[in-house]
Amino acid sequence: MSAPTTPGPAVADLLGLVAFGELLAFERMAGDARLAPDLHRRAALSEMAAAEIANYRRLADRLTALGVPPEDAMAPYLEPLQAYHDSTEPRDWAEVVTKAYVGDAITDDFLREIADTLDEPDRALVLDVLHDSRYAEFAAEEIRVAVAADPRVAGRLSMWARRLVGEALSQAGRVAAERAALTTLIAQGDRVEVPALFRRLTAAHTTRMATVGLNN
Amino acid sequence: MSAPTTPGPAVADLLGLVAFGELLAFERMAGDARLAPDLHRRAALSEMAAAEIANYRRLADRLTALGVPPEDAMAPYLEPLQAYHDSTEPRDWAEVVTKAYVGDAITDDFLREIADTLDEPDRALVLDVLHDSRYAEFAAEEIRVAVAADPRVAGRLSMWARRLVGEALSQAGRVAAERAALTTLIAQGDRVEVPALFRRLTAAHTTRMATVGLNN
Repeated sequence: MSAPTTPGPAVADLLGLVAFGELLAFERMAGDARLAPDLHRRAALSEMAAAEIANYRRLADRLTALGVPPEDAMAPYLEPLQAYHDSTEPRDWAEVVTKAYVGDAITDDFLREIADTLDEPDRALVLDVLHDSRYAEFAAEEIRVAVAADPRVAGRLSMWARRLVGEALSQAGRVAAERAALTTLIAQGDRVEVPALFRRLTAAHTTRMATVGLNN
Repeated sequence: MSAPTTPGPAVADLLGLVAFGELLAFERMAGDARLAPDLHRRAALSEMAAAEIANYRRLADRLTALGVPPEDAMAPYLEPLQAYHDSTEPRDWAEVVTKAYVGDAITDDFLREIADTLDEPDRALVLDVLHDSRYAEFAAEEIRVAVAADPRVAGRLSMWARRLVGEALSQAGRVAAERAALTTLIAQGDRVEVPALFRRLTAAHTTRMATVGLNN
């Protein structure tokens, strides 16, 4: 049995990616709240956004404990994550909740897959920052309401969700190409086939779309 | 000794005002984070914003317990608070932190004055939603750094702070004129002189300005 090892730089790479993802998700969701049709929903989205910040703090504290300034660990992801959000700016409330629903769930699936590659305490930390299911339920219900009110909305939101996934994959590919250590960590050396990982994430996404009346 | 009484509608008026103030402060500060000069400060402002939402939730829950839908209690303040923020849109980071510093402190002073007019549990609730002092310290330090880097900034930020207070008073006057029950509660019947209350808030503001090198 080997002694506990200090996590390598790839772990800081991963924590930096997740931390900046939380920070930017917070900012974008907080900004999207203005599109809410009433004060109740506006507050609900703001609360959903605020939950991301508590997770950001935990990840930033862990990076600091590892001797890595959080802003250094996050810097490589500034451009690709900003590009993702800039290219997927919601135009109305239905697009806002669909983006939150799709984005949170894919992030969580990815984190669940990745957690197994980590030693403690990073494994537990990454599993702990998964989104609270009540937020997914809120977003799913809002999508169902929008689709029920106007069935044509289903087609538009299905296309929107495909664009979200497309843009996310495109930026993920860019990150993977530039961050070899992170890609190796995700692939767990050669134990995980990255194409198979993508297939699993996509299959879970398709199932979730069907749950709210959208198609893939 | 009288039995505990159900709070009158003026209390829901007050809680609605504070709740919507928190919600809007959250949205505006989250939006202002984009003006931060680095990721560290950007995250710090986002965390400051997120703290408002936890308070919003407590106030909304209390309103619900009183049988008042939070959105109904907040509705009268939508326009004046939105007008305040629209007329005080910060143009750079120094204005962002000055707005947070001035706004949070005046809000807290007002809430401390008002708490005495309330019965429990509303008194404790209003005292509990006061801002964490570490946020004021962060904002104060940022102002000092900006002034130290360029002494001319002190003049500009002093003017900015005067504008913030002017716009806040103008909207407060509008609310006071339209919400007679709330105004009566704040005046505690006729026990508190409202002009004297305003003088106390202004005096405390002047002291705080001096603390960070600004003048009134």
